[in-house]
Amino acid sequence: MRITESTKRLEAYTPGEQPKSKAVIKLNTNENPYPPSPKCAKTLASFDLDRLRRYPDPVFMALREEIAKITGAKTENVFVGNGSDEILSLSAKAFVENNEIIASLNPSYSLYKTLAAIRDVEWAGSPIGGKIRIPENSSLFLWTNPNAPTGELAKPQDIALFARNFKGVVIVDEAYADFAKVNCMSLATAPKNKNIIVMRTLSKSYSLAGLRVGFCIGPKDLIEALYKIKDSYNVDAIAQSVALAALKDRAYHKKTVSKVIKTRKFFTKELVKRGWDVIPSEANFVFAKPPKGSAADIFAALKKKNIFVRYFPGELTGGRLRITIGTDEEMTRLLKALDSIACS
Amino acid sequence: MRITESTKRLEAYTPGEQPKSKAVIKLNTNENPYPPSPKCAKTLASFDLDRLRRYPDPVFMALREEIAKITGAKTENVFVGNGSDEILSLSAKAFVENNEIIASLNPSYSLYKTLAAIRDVEWAGSPIGGKIRIPENSSLFLWTNPNAPTGELAKPQDIALFARNFKGVVIVDEAYADFAKVNCMSLATAPKNKNIIVMRTLSKSYSLAGLRVGFCIGPKDLIEALYKIKDSYNVDAIAQSVALAALKDRAYHKKTVSKVIKTRKFFTKELVKRGWDVIPSEANFVFAKPPKGSAADIFAALKKKNIFVRYFPGELTGGRLRITIGTDEEMTRLLKALDSIACS
Repeated sequence: MRITESTKRLEAYTPGEQPKSKAVIKLNTNENPYPPSPKCAKTLASFDLDRLRRYPDPVFMALREEIAKITGAKTENVFVGNGSDEILSLSAKAFVENNEIIASLNPSYSLYKTLAAIRDVEWAGSPIGGKIRIPENSSLFLWTNPNAPTGELAKPQDIALFARNFKGVVIVDEAYADFAKVNCMSLATAPKNKNIIVMRTLSKSYSLAGLRVGFCIGPKDLIEALYKIKDSYNVDAIAQSVALAALKDRAYHKKTVSKVIKTRKFFTKELVKRGWDVIPSEANFVFAKPPKGSAADIFAALKKKNIFVRYFPGELTGGRLRITIGTDEEMTRLLKALDSIACS
Repeated sequence: MRITESTKRLEAYTPGEQPKSKAVIKLNTNENPYPPSPKCAKTLASFDLDRLRRYPDPVFMALREEIAKITGAKTENVFVGNGSDEILSLSAKAFVENNEIIASLNPSYSLYKTLAAIRDVEWAGSPIGGKIRIPENSSLFLWTNPNAPTGELAKPQDIALFARNFKGVVIVDEAYADFAKVNCMSLATAPKNKNIIVMRTLSKSYSLAGLRVGFCIGPKDLIEALYKIKDSYNVDAIAQSVALAALKDRAYHKKTVSKVIKTRKFFTKELVKRGWDVIPSEANFVFAKPPKGSAADIFAALKKKNIFVRYFPGELTGGRLRITIGTDEEMTRLLKALDSIACS
């Protein structure tokens, strides 16, 4: 007794390293190289501190109204979490019985496997490419689109087709969708779809990883289930206000996203020139295989030069590096570093 | 499939009403009548927005170091949650198997029962007064001390004795302990105690209900279990900084707490003068029975006068009102309102 067996067995998820040094070029956790909207700073500076005495709006209505406007959903179809991590945890509880399975593409966001272990259920991965094959009693499918770490974009109609034949809930994790040419939001708002939830985060395209705000859109009964089991006040008052300010500043968001996409194109071209195999990416990172030398060695050599990228060991992922798109300057410095490693 | 049976069955927890009108005298959710430390405002105003681009410190080390100083614990014995609500949810997962039971005093914090329902296990309540009687397979005991809604304070040695004979984990929920003359923190830091966790929140005595920061201290293996199952970044960067500023301002905290205690004494005396039966309170509220008229009627009459207090229907609680201690002025206005209701 005391600690549950599943918790004892658990290997905790390892998030990407967060070095403290400002000298590091940090391209390892898909953060945005540009600061959040200046409207966020204004909101913080003018925040009425006395509001913190009181509990925050438990159902974050102002924020939901803005999300509803952006997505075309009704507020009753909008849920907000303490980061989309929280939405995933709640979904694992609301949509998965103890004997059911959480499934996803493989490779995909590595947290999903840990999420299943925390929920004490099995995880199943369906190899990318071709028809999705998962066990019969899978009840939650987490479809990252664009996928991570690959950056590939699945077609919305393929996801819709899969969902129609799936008896559980499909969450389309669109953490990177703002950097992509299409997204699945219209699947989440279409009344005929009964089991599709689309999830977004402010961590990437809104430059607010530190704020912990994610949201999702879906059928009313599924969204209500999340409200029923969430902590009473899961999104704090400041986060609600700052997120609202960021969402309202559409022009700034658009500008930042465009810059990242432009840099992604430039950087991809440069890698290809150097013989790298780059999976066409619709996200704010690329997943690329070096022409020679191992990904692990290049990862280590870059780290020595204070450039952090992400390396996922293992058969499916270990041949490549996942590189976040930073500023033009950062990517140029990375390219120079790669050139010097290749020549050494 | 889709929504789990336990979620379907669930009746969501109803938090106290949060009226928007500034005209309301709000004495219903045990919030602090005084603003947070001015140091919090300073922290907000000078917060480097660029920090929000990056993920926050996943293990909130600066905050833990300060909490360690205040409590006499080591940082390895400190956990921080998105409100103590989150610590409760995580504990229900880390310390309770599917066939075990979450227990508490009865009456106590009404969320506990909902917490058990969300975790899909049974809840058991032990009547206040006398020996604690709970089912054999209880594995988590939540002991609110001072208790809510009663305000009564149990002796630390009684809690220690109970824990010694309990095979599961005891969480002493000390949300109100800063208003009490003794607390259990030394039980949580004593190496000989293997199953006692003491939990605090910044929502009450630090006037930061809107910020969502709670923490707990306990044996290393139990605290590690919470770290293993938490979301990667459960406390956002701003909350970490503002909480740190509040904790550091010891003088302000002491002053605010003293004022609330003073007002509690004055208000209790005034209620007793008017014939109310007031349970001696060590918290920032009182639980009191009117000399005549029903608690429900007085609750409704006060609400009409824009004064919100808390009424919990039911056999054990329905005879009394739980009244948060506000400012002297607010309590004086409440007393006048009670006088006018008594005469009408």
